[in-house]
Amino acid sequence: MIDLNEHEQILKQAINALHDRTYFAGFPENPSPDNYGADADAKGQKLFNNLLNKPYEELRQGEPEAWVGQEESPYTQESLGIKYPYFSPGKLVAHAQETFHQWRKVPADTRATILLDALSNLQNRFFELAYATMHTTGQAFMMAFQASGPHAADRALEAIAAGYEELNRFPKEANWEKPMGKYNLKLQKSWVAVPKGVAVAIGCSTFPTWNTVPGMFGSLITGNPVIVKPHPKSVLPMALIVAEVQKALATHGLNPQICQLAVDPDDRLITKDLAEHPVVKIIDYTGNTAFGNYLESLPGKIVFTEKAGVNSVILDSASDLDKVMQNLAFSVSLYSGQMCTAPQNFFIPESGLNVNGTQIPYEQVVQKFADAVSALINNPKVGPHVLGAIQSPVTAQRVKDMENIPGKPLLTTCDLANPQFAGARLCSPVIYEVPASAKEVYNRELFGPIALVIKTQNTEESIALAKELAQEHGAISCGAYTTNSDIKEQIKDEMSLAGTPVSFNLTGNIYLNQHASFSDFHVTGGNPAGNASFTNPEFIVKRFTWVGFREPVRE
Amino acid sequence: MIDLNEHEQILKQAINALHDRTYFAGFPENPSPDNYGADADAKGQKLFNNLLNKPYEELRQGEPEAWVGQEESPYTQESLGIKYPYFSPGKLVAHAQETFHQWRKVPADTRATILLDALSNLQNRFFELAYATMHTTGQAFMMAFQASGPHAADRALEAIAAGYEELNRFPKEANWEKPMGKYNLKLQKSWVAVPKGVAVAIGCSTFPTWNTVPGMFGSLITGNPVIVKPHPKSVLPMALIVAEVQKALATHGLNPQICQLAVDPDDRLITKDLAEHPVVKIIDYTGNTAFGNYLESLPGKIVFTEKAGVNSVILDSASDLDKVMQNLAFSVSLYSGQMCTAPQNFFIPESGLNVNGTQIPYEQVVQKFADAVSALINNPKVGPHVLGAIQSPVTAQRVKDMENIPGKPLLTTCDLANPQFAGARLCSPVIYEVPASAKEVYNRELFGPIALVIKTQNTEESIALAKELAQEHGAISCGAYTTNSDIKEQIKDEMSLAGTPVSFNLTGNIYLNQHASFSDFHVTGGNPAGNASFTNPEFIVKRFTWVGFREPVRE
Repeated sequence: MIDLNEHEQILKQAINALHDRTYFAGFPENPSPDNYGADADAKGQKLFNNLLNKPYEELRQGEPEAWVGQEESPYTQESLGIKYPYFSPGKLVAHAQETFHQWRKVPADTRATILLDALSNLQNRFFELAYATMHTTGQAFMMAFQASGPHAADRALEAIAAGYEELNRFPKEANWEKPMGKYNLKLQKSWVAVPKGVAVAIGCSTFPTWNTVPGMFGSLITGNPVIVKPHPKSVLPMALIVAEVQKALATHGLNPQICQLAVDPDDRLITKDLAEHPVVKIIDYTGNTAFGNYLESLPGKIVFTEKAGVNSVILDSASDLDKVMQNLAFSVSLYSGQMCTAPQNFFIPESGLNVNGTQIPYEQVVQKFADAVSALINNPKVGPHVLGAIQSPVTAQRVKDMENIPGKPLLTTCDLANPQFAGARLCSPVIYEVPASAKEVYNRELFGPIALVIKTQNTEESIALAKELAQEHGAISCGAYTTNSDIKEQIKDEMSLAGTPVSFNLTGNIYLNQHASFSDFHVTGGNPAGNASFTNPEFIVKRFTWVGFREPVRE
Repeated sequence: MIDLNEHEQILKQAINALHDRTYFAGFPENPSPDNYGADADAKGQKLFNNLLNKPYEELRQGEPEAWVGQEESPYTQESLGIKYPYFSPGKLVAHAQETFHQWRKVPADTRATILLDALSNLQNRFFELAYATMHTTGQAFMMAFQASGPHAADRALEAIAAGYEELNRFPKEANWEKPMGKYNLKLQKSWVAVPKGVAVAIGCSTFPTWNTVPGMFGSLITGNPVIVKPHPKSVLPMALIVAEVQKALATHGLNPQICQLAVDPDDRLITKDLAEHPVVKIIDYTGNTAFGNYLESLPGKIVFTEKAGVNSVILDSASDLDKVMQNLAFSVSLYSGQMCTAPQNFFIPESGLNVNGTQIPYEQVVQKFADAVSALINNPKVGPHVLGAIQSPVTAQRVKDMENIPGKPLLTTCDLANPQFAGARLCSPVIYEVPASAKEVYNRELFGPIALVIKTQNTEESIALAKELAQEHGAISCGAYTTNSDIKEQIKDEMSLAGTPVSFNLTGNIYLNQHASFSDFHVTGGNPAGNASFTNPEFIVKRFTWVGFREPVRE
């Protein structure tokens, strides 16, 4: 666990990890009592329960214009009853602008200390955060804990480390001495990294913290005040994080409004007003493609997006087909497919797969896939904890509407029960076989537990289709199974041109849905699924401007 | 001089220089025989003369569709008579696209070697390049030699070094091993930097090489084929550089069309056709603001611009006013003000300047400025070699049109003669006093030898106006003279917010117009004068995409 006294060391380790890209984590992902204490879970659950059905009072943003809130739990399908302070976009931006000159002058070291303080304190609230995430997103407890807590904190740490490194990549001062023959021309030079200005970080409903903190902490470490605008259905997780950042700022004698929470009133959305405000210079966004494209088109803004993609799995050959299918079944079922990295399109050659020298017919491969998903979701000890609940009724409806597509059902949704929450919004994965010619069905993201099997002429066609989809419609992940090294190299090369990372031959406890901090760049920025990447240098350097000064040295 | 056998060392030195930001140069700027050999000048002049009035045959681009050319010398005001091979935009893009897969697979080391080979060979042609630059831009010999030769080669080396560093900033491979309790999860990971695609580098008429090579070499080192599109009036300097890159590519067995020269036919311009071509992914541009804004607005393109700015000089106090005025007189006269870094607006308080404790009245300060410019341009041993010739008749007309502005002439243009070229297009600097209220006169770039003196209430107003102009209309340089350390800090702070570098108290042989490779970021990207900076990390990292692959380690 991060120790307040070891910030400098943590930062150094994190920067090294960014460049080694070997395994590194600042926050333990296992919610075991060994890591977090014996009463952490009970305490966290109690703290969460105490937040329900009352105003959220922890923010330090002054007197609100109203109290608003519209969250409901996908597990109970009842309102959380939490009311957040509402401030109009104009006020939020004015507050942020007031803090800009204070924050930009804070040295990078101090900024890092404050942000690491906030993360350090946040880890004492990971269980509270986990329940907040469960009951806004529908994630199962383990995912809610890991994704919103330690994994998100690591993505935040990654952004802090990357920002800190970039800010220190050029010297603050230098003596420039040019030999002119008879004398040396001497200039004293200095440089400052000038933050761009007020930033807005726009969150999504399914991964409210994991997807929001990279931009938020990336903007903060580089000196930009941030307005955090969560999805109206998933406010609480980010409210907790903003509260911790505000507390850390106040503890260091700074204006807590350097980081603000923006909440939509109950009758309308304020994101456009924030994004279009002329004072707002930086926008981070995770969400649907249409709104992402609108944000990217705004003139004079620096915009980082993660939008929708269409993720493919290319099946060519394998050494153990059962293990492959178990792995893929987990990938499509995890959080009921409500992940930007979840696979959707499974390309399988009509001749089937070569498994250890034996050709397994297409029909048998497909049946194994459906059987594996079916076995997983119907295992009462596993299914509910993998599937979680469905965040939005729209997603549940989308699964139902799949009945009408021109495809053959291989697995239809079944009745499920959640052992803990009888009223949970549930939906088991469906699998449809779609002809390769029906591109209009599979060339778009079908968010939710929906898998499409596409029969291709051969692996060549599978690769070509996966690449085309990624280039034209975006992709965030790709899985490939092949025992042929030439085909592996070909997939690498073709998918690299589509800006899509590939996980090869995953079996066991590692899934293509997972992108690890400090090692896996999440989204590449190289296809329509998004223009930004957690966390490559571009994600950081666009947030500030290098400006230099010089003066002759008087001797 | 760069030695072919020392590429590795040069690259290392250049990368270090980028981070030290102390003085570094790969190519000697002094055209002395000691550096370049006794006959280098005569040989270069002869080679240039041999190019005139005939087809330019050195490019390796296949059979052209036509032979075109419209250059004329500002010194003779006669056609150079050089005809270049013309290829339609569609053909150029198709050629570039064909080479993409070859070039992207060339390792970064080899790309660097090839590009350094080209620069190494180019330095044997610096004199030829100098005359080519003189007779297309109107630059005086010394500037033409330095800016187009060694200084441009250093900017190219800087882009190669920055690109090489970024490409090696993350490992090609790593073993990722995550402790899972009872076992370790092991993944073998790898990453590739995938170039974005076909690039176009659009040059300007006044600094055809210096402004074009950073983008050109930045794209090439990161694996993108480049189409170099010079201004139709300044083709030859870039033709020489493209020819050297093509020769180096061919020597290494690669398709020389990885780097192509695009020349406009005589009756129309092809830049828009190139820029809008869907296969073109990267655009580098130096030129006017309207066209730069159009390029920046093109969807789906990565665009780097240097557009127009309004550069200010803030005069507050000084220790030696004569030296200040001599320095500023040189700055406004150098290449007749046809520099993106030339100062235009001189803000002087109505109370005059404090010079060593004595208050020098405003009128006296202004008179000293006009006298200093007058003395410089009328010194026959200095004037012509500083002023050069006027590149475009439009610039000469702009100077003439200044008669009609609402301002008081302090220095009007005078008859000049060039000792070498009787027919040269000349124009001496003019100085007008403009009221601070007449913002419509001084809030835009008046490209050419035009200086405006603006009388302000005090230095506070001077700073406020300089900042406002930079923020709203862009600025690439700023000069400030003050002996007051508080005011200096204030100017630094305010101009940093306007993304504008400031040179303080320059006197002697260093001018605010000059931006040194490896030390001064040229253009910051932080104001409307341009979105790119030579060469900060952003200038490089947007040219490629990091894509990762991973696979379990089988034990």
